Amino acid sequence: MIIVGEKLNSTLKVIRPAMENRDEQKVINLAKRQIEAGASYLDLNTAMFGDAEVETMEWLVNTVQGVMNVPLTFDSPNPKVIKRALALNKNPKPMINSITAETERFEGIAPLLSEYEASVIALCMDDSGMPETADDRFKIADTLIENLTKLGIKLDDIYIDPMVRPVGTGSHYGIIALDTIRSVKRKFPEVHIMCGLSNISFGLPARKLVNQVFLVSCMNAGMDGAILDPLDKKLMSFLYASEAVLGLDDFCVNYLEKFREGELEV
Amino acid sequence: MIIVGEKLNSTLKVIRPAMENRDEQKVINLAKRQIEAGASYLDLNTAMFGDAEVETMEWLVNTVQGVMNVPLTFDSPNPKVIKRALALNKNPKPMINSITAETERFEGIAPLLSEYEASVIALCMDDSGMPETADDRFKIADTLIENLTKLGIKLDDIYIDPMVRPVGTGSHYGIIALDTIRSVKRKFPEVHIMCGLSNISFGLPARKLVNQVFLVSCMNAGMDGAILDPLDKKLMSFLYASEAVLGLDDFCVNYLEKFREGELEV
Repeated sequence: MIIVGEKLNSTLKVIRPAMENRDEQKVINLAKRQIEAGASYLDLNTAMFGDAEVETMEWLVNTVQGVMNVPLTFDSPNPKVIKRALALNKNPKPMINSITAETERFEGIAPLLSEYEASVIALCMDDSGMPETADDRFKIADTLIENLTKLGIKLDDIYIDPMVRPVGTGSHYGIIALDTIRSVKRKFPEVHIMCGLSNISFGLPARKLVNQVFLVSCMNAGMDGAILDPLDKKLMSFLYASEAVLGLDDFCVNYLEKFREGELEV
Repeated sequence: MIIVGEKLNSTLKVIRPAMENRDEQKVINLAKRQIEAGASYLDLNTAMFGDAEVETMEWLVNTVQGVMNVPLTFDSPNPKVIKRALALNKNPKPMINSITAETERFEGIAPLLSEYEASVIALCMDDSGMPETADDRFKIADTLIENLTKLGIKLDDIYIDPMVRPVGTGSHYGIIALDTIRSVKRKFPEVHIMCGLSNISFGLPARKLVNQVFLVSCMNAGMDGAILDPLDKKLMSFLYASEAVLGLDDFCVNYLEKFREGELEV
């Protein structure tokens, strides 16, 4: 599993003040802990800073890459912010979060991909919004993959996000996401899946339980990437156990190692 | 999900002495608690009593049906024990645990099915043992279903058990079970799946974690029945959350009710 650590996100109340106050130590600490806990990428999101987003992202990128040579994920709906982050970035293999099939967003982001050899999270939505069926989501994924590969982007650099909606607002939304993942993986085995998981449980009680079940379910459907909190030991325990159950962990070596290290929470 | 409560089993040290000492109250108590916790069937297993198995099963059947009119699952490799239990049974819809495609076992058990209008758990093994691939397991399931329906058994009364082997002894065993479930459900949507789950984690640490993940995985593959401990609140919480995520719980009504009743453990 490719894990993008989600904690350096301005929408999270716990870290936003640290970004506001330019608290380098707090940011560096959270960056290091996420990598130690198993993240391959660190998501950097400054969307809550409005007019000050570009300069906040500049500070954040410089702060993190000043001490760590890990891949960063630039997370903004604003192509200007993404472009500035990519221009500053010195770390290997940047990732853009995200592109969609919406005309303006696609045209704003797509040229940056080849220019900076970035990988990209592509959301299953277009100018008419988020479609209601798995078939229609797959069609958008299909179009996105076609248009991205036409621009020279490799399949291996594309991460499709099926756009998870809360199962509390529609009992079919879990299945829609899972079916979309299966269809994409069937047609494009080299393309990755990257879900933001926690939206599934919005509005329900005992959200962690639903998130854990959905992580396991998405991995069963073929998801090989997730934006999540790698400091959530319980969720990570489910991830390691799923890899063991799904034959993705030869001889359960990693599962056994995590147990020995005290990383498994039952 | 069709849940068979597994607690009245002579291989479990916690209940075996109660069977030995003919402790009716203990047995009745455990029977009631399992039904209250969501079991539809109660598995009765007396296999550890050797020569005294028939009389122990007689006592067990009479004890339980003396106070509860719930469906019972008669669990023995010995057709004589099964036959005696069926003859005594006054409760609705008995289930036999289990038949296989082994010639002797099939011929010993199959005639009892139509005679007593029982449903049956059919294990994917034959005279050559437990096959190593999902394809070969499916072939046995296919043969079992064909031979059972020839005898007039309804598809809805057949529960296929894919025979779960420990993932710690072979990383592919989880996938083999899941693929078998999917193949059976694809060809025979009316046939049920009934897994004993806990074998998956044999030999691994933190077994409960692996069992929870495997329950969710099997439900993703289409499993609609399980032999488990309904008194394990945590495992049942995963079951309810899986039903919510997989669109099997309209408007998450049951999930929300279980939360309100304090039945969800996060």
